[in-house]
Amino acid sequence: MDFSYSDKVNELQKKVNQFMEDHVYPNEKVYEKQLNEQSDRWGAIPPIMGELTAKAKAEGLWNLFLPESDLGAGLTNVEYAPLCETMGRSLIGPEVFNCSAPDTGNMEVLVRYGTEKQKEKWLKPLLDGEIRSCFSMTEPDVASSDATNIEARIERDGNEYVINGRKWWSSGAGDPRCKIAIVMGKNDQNANRHEQQSMILVPLDSPGVTIERMLSVFGYDHAPHGHAEITYENVRVPAENIIWGEGKGFAIAQGRLGPGRIHHCMRLIGAAERALDELCKRVQERTAFGKPLSKQGVIQEWIADSRIEIEQARLLTLKAAYMMDTVGNKEAKAEIAMIKVVAPSMALRVLDRAIQAFGGAGVSNDTPLAAQWANARTLRLADGPDEVHKAQVAKLELRKYQ
Amino acid sequence: MDFSYSDKVNELQKKVNQFMEDHVYPNEKVYEKQLNEQSDRWGAIPPIMGELTAKAKAEGLWNLFLPESDLGAGLTNVEYAPLCETMGRSLIGPEVFNCSAPDTGNMEVLVRYGTEKQKEKWLKPLLDGEIRSCFSMTEPDVASSDATNIEARIERDGNEYVINGRKWWSSGAGDPRCKIAIVMGKNDQNANRHEQQSMILVPLDSPGVTIERMLSVFGYDHAPHGHAEITYENVRVPAENIIWGEGKGFAIAQGRLGPGRIHHCMRLIGAAERALDELCKRVQERTAFGKPLSKQGVIQEWIADSRIEIEQARLLTLKAAYMMDTVGNKEAKAEIAMIKVVAPSMALRVLDRAIQAFGGAGVSNDTPLAAQWANARTLRLADGPDEVHKAQVAKLELRKYQ
Amino acid sequence: MDFSYSDKVNELQKKVNQFMEDHVYPNEKVYEKQLNEQSDRWGAIPPIMGELTAKAKAEGLWNLFLPESDLGAGLTNVEYAPLCETMGRSLIGPEVFNCSAPDTGNMEVLVRYGTEKQKEKWLKPLLDGEIRSCFSMTEPDVASSDATNIEARIERDGNEYVINGRKWWSSGAGDPRCKIAIVMGKNDQNANRHEQQSMILVPLDSPGVTIERMLSVFGYDHAPHGHAEITYENVRVPAENIIWGEGKGFAIAQGRLGPGRIHHCMRLIGAAERALDELCKRVQERTAFGKPLSKQGVIQEWIADSRIEIEQARLLTLKAAYMMDTVGNKEAKAEIAMIKVVAPSMALRVLDRAIQAFGGAGVSNDTPLAAQWANARTLRLADGPDEVHKAQVAKLELRKYQ
Amino acid sequence: MDFSYSDKVNELQKKVNQFMEDHVYPNEKVYEKQLNEQSDRWGAIPPIMGELTAKAKAEGLWNLFLPESDLGAGLTNVEYAPLCETMGRSLIGPEVFNCSAPDTGNMEVLVRYGTEKQKEKWLKPLLDGEIRSCFSMTEPDVASSDATNIEARIERDGNEYVINGRKWWSSGAGDPRCKIAIVMGKNDQNANRHEQQSMILVPLDSPGVTIERMLSVFGYDHAPHGHAEITYENVRVPAENIIWGEGKGFAIAQGRLGPGRIHHCMRLIGAAERALDELCKRVQERTAFGKPLSKQGVIQEWIADSRIEIEQARLLTLKAAYMMDTVGNKEAKAEIAMIKVVAPSMALRVLDRAIQAFGGAGVSNDTPLAAQWANARTLRLADGPDEVHKAQVAKLELRKYQ
Repeated sequence: MDFSYSDKVNELQKKVNQFMEDHVYPNEKVYEKQLNEQSDRWGAIPPIMGELTAKAKAEGLWNLFLPESDLGAGLTNVEYAPLCETMGRSLIGPEVFNCSAPDTGNMEVLVRYGTEKQKEKWLKPLLDGEIRSCFSMTEPDVASSDATNIEARIERDGNEYVINGRKWWSSGAGDPRCKIAIVMGKNDQNANRHEQQSMILVPLDSPGVTIERMLSVFGYDHAPHGHAEITYENVRVPAENIIWGEGKGFAIAQGRLGPGRIHHCMRLIGAAERALDELCKRVQERTAFGKPLSKQGVIQEWIADSRIEIEQARLLTLKAAYMMDTVGNKEAKAEIAMIKVVAPSMALRVLDRAIQAFGGAGVSNDTPLAAQWANARTLRLADGPDEVHKAQVAKLELRKYQ
Repeated sequence: MDFSYSDKVNELQKKVNQFMEDHVYPNEKVYEKQLNEQSDRWGAIPPIMGELTAKAKAEGLWNLFLPESDLGAGLTNVEYAPLCETMGRSLIGPEVFNCSAPDTGNMEVLVRYGTEKQKEKWLKPLLDGEIRSCFSMTEPDVASSDATNIEARIERDGNEYVINGRKWWSSGAGDPRCKIAIVMGKNDQNANRHEQQSMILVPLDSPGVTIERMLSVFGYDHAPHGHAEITYENVRVPAENIIWGEGKGFAIAQGRLGPGRIHHCMRLIGAAERALDELCKRVQERTAFGKPLSKQGVIQEWIADSRIEIEQARLLTLKAAYMMDTVGNKEAKAEIAMIKVVAPSMALRVLDRAIQAFGGAGVSNDTPLAAQWANARTLRLADGPDEVHKAQVAKLELRKYQ
Repeated sequence: MDFSYSDKVNELQKKVNQFMEDHVYPNEKVYEKQLNEQSDRWGAIPPIMGELTAKAKAEGLWNLFLPESDLGAGLTNVEYAPLCETMGRSLIGPEVFNCSAPDTGNMEVLVRYGTEKQKEKWLKPLLDGEIRSCFSMTEPDVASSDATNIEARIERDGNEYVINGRKWWSSGAGDPRCKIAIVMGKNDQNANRHEQQSMILVPLDSPGVTIERMLSVFGYDHAPHGHAEITYENVRVPAENIIWGEGKGFAIAQGRLGPGRIHHCMRLIGAAERALDELCKRVQERTAFGKPLSKQGVIQEWIADSRIEIEQARLLTLKAAYMMDTVGNKEAKAEIAMIKVVAPSMALRVLDRAIQAFGGAGVSNDTPLAAQWANARTLRLADGPDEVHKAQVAKLELRKYQ
Repeated sequence: MDFSYSDKVNELQKKVNQFMEDHVYPNEKVYEKQLNEQSDRWGAIPPIMGELTAKAKAEGLWNLFLPESDLGAGLTNVEYAPLCETMGRSLIGPEVFNCSAPDTGNMEVLVRYGTEKQKEKWLKPLLDGEIRSCFSMTEPDVASSDATNIEARIERDGNEYVINGRKWWSSGAGDPRCKIAIVMGKNDQNANRHEQQSMILVPLDSPGVTIERMLSVFGYDHAPHGHAEITYENVRVPAENIIWGEGKGFAIAQGRLGPGRIHHCMRLIGAAERALDELCKRVQERTAFGKPLSKQGVIQEWIADSRIEIEQARLLTLKAAYMMDTVGNKEAKAEIAMIKVVAPSMALRVLDRAIQAFGGAGVSNDTPLAAQWANARTLRLADGPDEVHKAQVAKLELRKYQ
């Protein structure tokens, strides 16, 4: 296992880091302020985001994900890891570099499984940051942790597919730039368990697509991105919109979710590092009971535990990335499942300690901590709850003894 | 130790419980809807609250706190515990019965330490539910976990006191009915460490009082109640507004915080019971990987751990209540510190398990879980962070061996 | 719920406590020394034990368990709790008062389910402390956590029963005074799942009974008490030795294990209190990095957490005892299961903290901590592993919603 | 960071692994049996150990530690890691390969800081496995976690040094082959805090050296190796026995403890892997409540958590090893402190889960689990308690912000 970096990547790390320092952190509050001042939080993107993306694009800090493709920066997962981590230090960071969820996962799907026509129509504007996309998989009425429970239907009718179903947690659907959804549904209930599902491209302006409401996350609306509940009612799209082919939905999900999951983990490590930064600075500034908080044993234990947990989570993420790069996403499934369990919980603990050290400021929006915490909490559920990943790890472990 | 209840209290328990079932739970969403439809979330109280309080008052379910006073229901802390717990099952519950923070704590201060004139002017309308109050103790610029850090000033000038300082987390100040603040500040920096502080009544419409902004808790604004940052700039109030006398601030805080803390704990136990309820119902409805969630071992462990933790927290809360009733708040200080540490963390764990079982619904506002979680999280900080209470418990324990 | 004590019980508490201070703690090392100096650790009981039991008996501190029976001290479970806790502070404590496992459980079986003849022959000398007994239930070859797995056979043959099987963890069988075993086995494999088992009295000197070996617990042999692996090979006993009747084994186990379990929990609370005592004393004596350990924040947190956890476990144990006293062992089964999970883990945590504070002394035999830890660890397994009790708690909880 | 291995190392891994399978695991019980059958557990080394060491030496699997030295196998720490881990799977493993504590640490001291004469006299026979050594640093009367507390004296008198002091946890001193102790003591109380200590070579047969007693670890005596309490009373050794020079004791300790600590961590990872192995095999063999334990959700969670924790601990250990290899033990001090905290706790958790899965067998000596647990528990104390290492990590972290 080799986690060393080329000069090119070292250079990129330095640039992304500098960009964050110079342009992203100082504008977090600007973004929030512009958003709050809009007449409609969902009506537009705060202008600062456009300025930042333009700047990042100009500096070549754009589409840095996408391993094994000449469309991105040509980086491996191991190489992308420190960049993604740095972006994840700010909740507005990833979008600045066109590296935010769910678009990166959707773009990977199109790169790997899309037709030339699909790429031309949807991938190109996504890579250019002109449009956004969402991913409609989870359903409110069933336990979606078990993908075979999915009830949405994608049925062939002549030269079209007809889509019916109710989806939620279609994140990003609130963004006025969001034009396209990848929808998962069943096309054949009688096929093998994992060959019943398909994925299809559905333009959000298709008749029958209704955004019913936006869901909140611990009080946050995450506007203008947002998390939508969407009904698809007799929505018709051309047959060519199917991705890869009928029955390939589960296989694509497996392919899509590996990279999506590891990107989330990288970002969470960044969020945890930021929290530890903030914590360390804070406790040197405040004094209680006669000495700085930084001299209090319990606080020191928080710092040590946080550093120890971050280091371990990062190394395991790198190992998973290394395996994805060398033996492929499928062979890396145990490691991907492991980091998907480790990273959110680790980040939640580190963030929680920082919140506790900040007192009232920690639970408010005066620091990025509470919002990062809420985000990390969803990642113990999104792309599969912890319990499903643990069961997967156990299954693979037990298999060694059979 | 005797935790058995009289018929009168059994009757009250039944009535409060029935009231919650009939009127409170079914109106939680009504309250939220009315609030969201107001042109200004801070401008008015959703009408349903007025209907509910009127109904509770009519049924005699009003001011059930206030032990050792003929102004309340004449209940001891042990007797109030199950009622308060039941109210705490809903975030809108306590207010319905005029038993919500910070008003109960403020009313207790006035009952115990107020002059007749203060009682007439402020306690009476509070008991009637006509006005609301806030408590201005915590400051943004210092570690308020150490009360001796407080920087606000309350200085005598002729027949008046002049108040200067910046406070935050003055909860309830957003409520349009909120008329009065109890402000803590130093009147004499040269007195003994715990005799430098005073508390004083400051009408919110006094010149020099400015509500600078409302703080959020995770993404919740808690409108119309809210958490205010307030500046007091050369605010002048009559000398008679001082509570108990100069230098009594710390003593009042100790007296006030005991009951305030235990009420929070009782409510948290209710919140945890509600979460366990919701969890148990949910897991019997959903199926994944071939069997109901309720048959899955990990889920069963969550249920057992939750039941076990709730039982223990409740018993320790009752013990603390019993000691407050029998040997007094001061002698009960170790037990009060213990439950203040135990109850929020216990509730957070139980709520977190329920959230995990609900998946996406759990982090959204479709269930009361996320909002209850955010509320419980603040209670690891409010009225003293866990770490300060633990240090207190340790100190008292070590003292036995000296 | 009423946990207050009569004068009689207060008096007993004082006496037991004084006896422990005067006679038990000072003789722990004497007991150990005498045992180590014996030519055979299994050959005899260290003489100090005889002196102590004689003294306790003379003071009327004898057979304090046994609720609802005129054979003991006439105490309820709630009344016995503080006495049992105090005895449990020392590993040699319970035997001094004839209140040690497994004899108390076995005596309860005979009191409740034994014939007059069985009582005369076995119960009387047990109550007098003249003989000891063991309980042969667990088997090495199956998962005994599920009692229906039991493979031993108890088969009627004329006027006798013939016993065949392999048992282990028959604790106390090493004691030279141990004369009788209560053996559990199946008499009818075709009966209902919980009516296949019987319990029978088997004198240890019966032909066919072989003590194969003594098992260790971590590195402790627990001589001369010990934990035996025993084979029963065509062992014949008179038919009158059956307890209660054929098929009653499971019912007796349920009846026996409730009291047995709660006694273990009471003792564990005593063990934890002792550990906290030792910890608090130690940290005031030792200095590192410029200040006494007792002033270090992390140590203070250990003390607070320990106090908090002990208080909660004790209250839950009292609640279970109260329910056993008032609504019966069967109705108290959820509470018994809960404390069976809570008490060992709590004691292990408190003991572990004390061990850590003592450093090398903690893991050695210079303090009672390591031996108490090893003992407590077995109690996460004995009388049912934690996981089985949690599943039981969950099942009872879920039943409320069906 | 590069954790990939050369062919030579891959070959060694295979050989060590095969040797363990063929010769070590099958002889664990043989070793125990021979030891138990000796008239004196301390009188001799079970013959099987001699056979195994001879075999290992013959195969060139000898002295595999010792980076940067031509006396060992010429392996880096990263290269030694998987070998040491494999040896650590068995408590008798490391000695077989002459890679056991405390000898490896002592040999490293002599390699780095010893004179030619010292090397000839002591290092050579140690490398040949002819003699054993112990390390006398910890003292019973002070908190040795703070090395400045040490009270032993090493005083110059003419051409000799006179040693006085009481030490304990001098592990290995029970071994009849143990000939030499490295003793730490103060030579100058007025020097700088970290220049007061010296280390000196003291032959165990010197007049004035008395082994007072052997300490147990959770009931284990660890014979014939053992943990000795030793008094040094006016022990005189030639001045040339001083290591490196007066006042160098603290510096040597720092140099010695880094490698010693990481070796312990590597072995603990092996112990944890072995435990997970045993657990996985066991749960597929046993059935309870109608299905194999391996199908029960809680058990699967144990397996997943164990795999996840082992992976992370191993990666962090490798990172620490890599830093020791590339930037040196001193620059790696944060990482060494981190793994010293992580590895024992991780191993304890994994071992504890395996113990729980095995039931009674787990706490007995029928499996290696209980003995490994006891060993791992001492490693939360040996070479510095967790709390000291965490404080060190926190200090280094906070320093980044000053």
